[in-house]
Amino acid sequence: MELTVALHTVFDLRRDRCVWDVSHQAYPHKILTGRKGRFDSLRQTGGLCGFTHPEESEYDLFHTGHAGTSISLALGLASGLGSGKDAPHAIAVIGDASLGAGVAFEALNNAGASKQRLLVILNDNEWSISKSVGSLARYLTRIRSARVIQRAGQEIHGLLSAIPVIGERVDRALDDLGEVMRHAVVPGHVFEELGVTYVGPVNGHDVLDLVEQLERVKDLEGCVLLHLLTEKGKGHPGAPTHPERVHGVKPGSAPRTAGADSRKLPGRESAVAKKPQGPAFTSAFADALLKLAEGDVRVHAITAGMPSGTGLETFAERLSLRFHDTGITEQHAVAFAAGMAKAGLRPVAAIYSTFLQRAYDQVFQEVALQNLPVLFCMDRAGLVGQDGPTHNGVFDIAYLRTLPNFVIAAPRDATDMRRMLEMGLRQAGPVALRYPRANASGSERIHSSERREMLPGRAEVLCEGDPAGVVVWALGPMVDCALEAAERLAADGIRIGVVDARFAKPLDGELLARDLSTRRALITVEEHQRAGGFGSAVLEAASRLPNVRASLRVLAIPDRFIEHRTTREEQLEESGIDAAAVERAVRSVHNSGHPVG
Amino acid sequence: MELTVALHTVFDLRRDRCVWDVSHQAYPHKILTGRKGRFDSLRQTGGLCGFTHPEESEYDLFHTGHAGTSISLALGLASGLGSGKDAPHAIAVIGDASLGAGVAFEALNNAGASKQRLLVILNDNEWSISKSVGSLARYLTRIRSARVIQRAGQEIHGLLSAIPVIGERVDRALDDLGEVMRHAVVPGHVFEELGVTYVGPVNGHDVLDLVEQLERVKDLEGCVLLHLLTEKGKGHPGAPTHPERVHGVKPGSAPRTAGADSRKLPGRESAVAKKPQGPAFTSAFADALLKLAEGDVRVHAITAGMPSGTGLETFAERLSLRFHDTGITEQHAVAFAAGMAKAGLRPVAAIYSTFLQRAYDQVFQEVALQNLPVLFCMDRAGLVGQDGPTHNGVFDIAYLRTLPNFVIAAPRDATDMRRMLEMGLRQAGPVALRYPRANASGSERIHSSERREMLPGRAEVLCEGDPAGVVVWALGPMVDCALEAAERLAADGIRIGVVDARFAKPLDGELLARDLSTRRALITVEEHQRAGGFGSAVLEAASRLPNVRASLRVLAIPDRFIEHRTTREEQLEESGIDAAAVERAVRSVHNSGHPVG
Repeated sequence: MELTVALHTVFDLRRDRCVWDVSHQAYPHKILTGRKGRFDSLRQTGGLCGFTHPEESEYDLFHTGHAGTSISLALGLASGLGSGKDAPHAIAVIGDASLGAGVAFEALNNAGASKQRLLVILNDNEWSISKSVGSLARYLTRIRSARVIQRAGQEIHGLLSAIPVIGERVDRALDDLGEVMRHAVVPGHVFEELGVTYVGPVNGHDVLDLVEQLERVKDLEGCVLLHLLTEKGKGHPGAPTHPERVHGVKPGSAPRTAGADSRKLPGRESAVAKKPQGPAFTSAFADALLKLAEGDVRVHAITAGMPSGTGLETFAERLSLRFHDTGITEQHAVAFAAGMAKAGLRPVAAIYSTFLQRAYDQVFQEVALQNLPVLFCMDRAGLVGQDGPTHNGVFDIAYLRTLPNFVIAAPRDATDMRRMLEMGLRQAGPVALRYPRANASGSERIHSSERREMLPGRAEVLCEGDPAGVVVWALGPMVDCALEAAERLAADGIRIGVVDARFAKPLDGELLARDLSTRRALITVEEHQRAGGFGSAVLEAASRLPNVRASLRVLAIPDRFIEHRTTREEQLEESGIDAAAVERAVRSVHNSGHPVG
Repeated sequence: MELTVALHTVFDLRRDRCVWDVSHQAYPHKILTGRKGRFDSLRQTGGLCGFTHPEESEYDLFHTGHAGTSISLALGLASGLGSGKDAPHAIAVIGDASLGAGVAFEALNNAGASKQRLLVILNDNEWSISKSVGSLARYLTRIRSARVIQRAGQEIHGLLSAIPVIGERVDRALDDLGEVMRHAVVPGHVFEELGVTYVGPVNGHDVLDLVEQLERVKDLEGCVLLHLLTEKGKGHPGAPTHPERVHGVKPGSAPRTAGADSRKLPGRESAVAKKPQGPAFTSAFADALLKLAEGDVRVHAITAGMPSGTGLETFAERLSLRFHDTGITEQHAVAFAAGMAKAGLRPVAAIYSTFLQRAYDQVFQEVALQNLPVLFCMDRAGLVGQDGPTHNGVFDIAYLRTLPNFVIAAPRDATDMRRMLEMGLRQAGPVALRYPRANASGSERIHSSERREMLPGRAEVLCEGDPAGVVVWALGPMVDCALEAAERLAADGIRIGVVDARFAKPLDGELLARDLSTRRALITVEEHQRAGGFGSAVLEAASRLPNVRASLRVLAIPDRFIEHRTTREEQLEESGIDAAAVERAVRSVHNSGHPVG
């Protein structure tokens, strides 16, 4: 807050350009740039975005939510803003946790070597989403206490100056020592060694001092890192004790993460029952993984800075030696998991779908190419509601399916989550499970013992329907939409088949060949982009089969970014992948002979 | 070489585990581990792989070729090798250029904080693929000269010890100074600050000293970085003057990169002419970009450590202020380009297809989501022959196509390369061009002025063929295969249509709808994996059209990794995407009514 005021005081942020890393620290900035009146609409449908957004304000440059890239962006901006004293300034504001991301190091390494003027403001609040991990965090902590040493150094320097000079050789040695001391006693010499001018640490809550510091450093040449010490949520009631609760503000409705106590297994007969309350996929994953890990010492859990979001906090407490939080370092987390797998362990990498994009090359080279048994558990795979397009996990099937050796599965409910985890830990190669932030008991209609065996490439028929009619192949929680549509259609005498595809790769070729040769139409539905997704895999398989009678239709997210909405359900509706959309697609086959979608 | 001997002397590398970063520095290791007799077959079909490969030897752990992940892999291995004095050792050998990759920093940051025993050997040969860039490289250079300062510091320390103590306060100050000096005079304190024990620098060419150093450090606790100073290619004739020539050994046939002087524009009538000699796509790109940049000051070129491989050396000489080599830091390079684009520049990011995977999240968030005009020029998009699966660029259509806002194009020859670059620089959003390491004049049969306008989503009909027969939609250099097949088939009276699709996204919907409703079969051919590729895009489009008469067949790389071969042509044949494969697919339509592929 104080930094934002100081920045807007010292700079003209329509001309000077400021990039907020993981821009949800930009709320005060939004309030100060004409959006105070709309602030109640934050993260709601039609309201303000939770991050900076160029469509909202000329003061917002980028719409970002992933960490670590602000320094690169600002350096790029600086290249285009011209040079010279009067050129506009380029500024990056980055938190201490984001600084641990490899891309931030790459950028500092480049910025330090370039002559470009750039101001990097390190907002060091000591506790990040969970807590800063890694040596860099410890280094920043040491800087906090470095002033003591600095004072001692100055004292010595005074003493040395008073010693009578006893020869030229000592003179030179003293000069060398002076150089050495300048490096040693100034905090931040790691940054200095990277060619970055370090200034700080300074109190980030003293606006007047901040303004003075900014004025002082803004025209320095090259890359300057201004190190602020702040307390997150200072002034926010309840902040000191519950850091995770104030990190992302959640106005409006609470997230749908009901307790894990009401899991129900109503059996096949209750297919027409109302949606039972139940656990979120996140807690279904966490519970099942903990049980499996308790029975198999090879199982390790890895997260990249999201121990709470991925549900791994209990795992971390109970099996701390087998829990690894690497910080916001997805690339390292994935390659680290590959090393573990090679050594015979069974690493489970719990990384949000959207964040796994950050480690795509490690997923390719270190895991898929080596065919190693790393089990990826991709939470937030699907639409995420209030966080919007930076956090929607809707590309993973496309970017993983194209890699050989991968098994890609999606549980439809908590029971299948457990079964899929068991299956995943038995495989000899890489497996990815995808599941959204949603209730996991929607289609909890069939008892575990009555379900078809969980093997890669084995789908499950949930309703046969009219053998020559329409069949819907659904993936993950979309199975529930298909079942809901089937119920509504049955009321009009239209009996559709419903298949839980379970796997986006490999597909159940046998069942697919049967359905394509006997059904009138086959409709796929998935919570993923159309391009390259599960439906696309079905189309590819169909193009290789000789006897295709069914016309094919893919229900998936259209080729655009889905903006934030109050709820995921609104986004599903907008994307045409809810029960109503399935129903419409089926009725269009019956009306026109060709499905729409 | 000397390091390899020392490592095999000190460690049992069947039990202790050594990971070679970008494993082409592992040739001596291969020779020492039973592969000397087969060394002449290096990088040839059926011969040894250019990198470490687990299928070749129990001494090889991972098959890698992308930089920076060895520390993560070794740390993962260490977690699984057990702890205690007798546990096997985990070792990573990494070059100075690779250390600038963000993932290496992420790994060191994690390793420094963990208690895990890990030996990282920094093979610092001062000159990397081109030359080390960034501040870290300068820091390593300073370490080389740090011994001078260290000696000076010791001298001062001696002097200080001789000064009579004049009070307790000075005592304490001296202690503090001692602490400060320990940090300052020991080279490598940046690493020490990250929690890593730094040892060095030591001469990497003295085997006996190396053995001694390795014995000394191998049982130290925590993460140890042993810094070796080496000269690349020491003992190799010609090494000192031409670093790039000895970086990757190229036995056997020379790469097909003929001079740029023999470009021919034979005109439409010569469609049956023999393949003209001509420039490689790389030089066609380099020539065209240089001309365009000379006429537009907004154009900047960015490379991530590959100025030579991407053909940008002349650009770097002539327009040095608009040339940016960020080192092996693809993440930063892409976000940096996004910043430039936001500031009104026209950045061209020349990054190999396979290496762009390393920046996938920045391609998503910083470029596609912001819809910024960054022009990606993906060399080595396709099969690469001797480098094998780590370098095959065969996933880019899938991982880019699923992102909204992207235009993805592939030139069939040098003329279209120029036209596509012009088109790309005119777009308001992101564009990616893909082209392989191959001759670029195969289908240079139509004069530039006679070609259809180059606009996104506009394909070009090269042969109409039988209007109700088979049409082949080809992408990039595959157009040449299709034309060659058309010639052979014409000899038997089979007249096929040939379309240069030009774009994998967006497709030419109008032309596609026409061909799908009138043709007997439509065959797509591309140098990319089947899953999620160009053919998959055609299938998706077809599934949304009402009047599809044509049966569809996708010719693409099957769902496995294609191993290294002496030539790319062998890999094309093996993958079923050459002229003969197109011919077979067409004949199968004529024989059986359904195409095979």
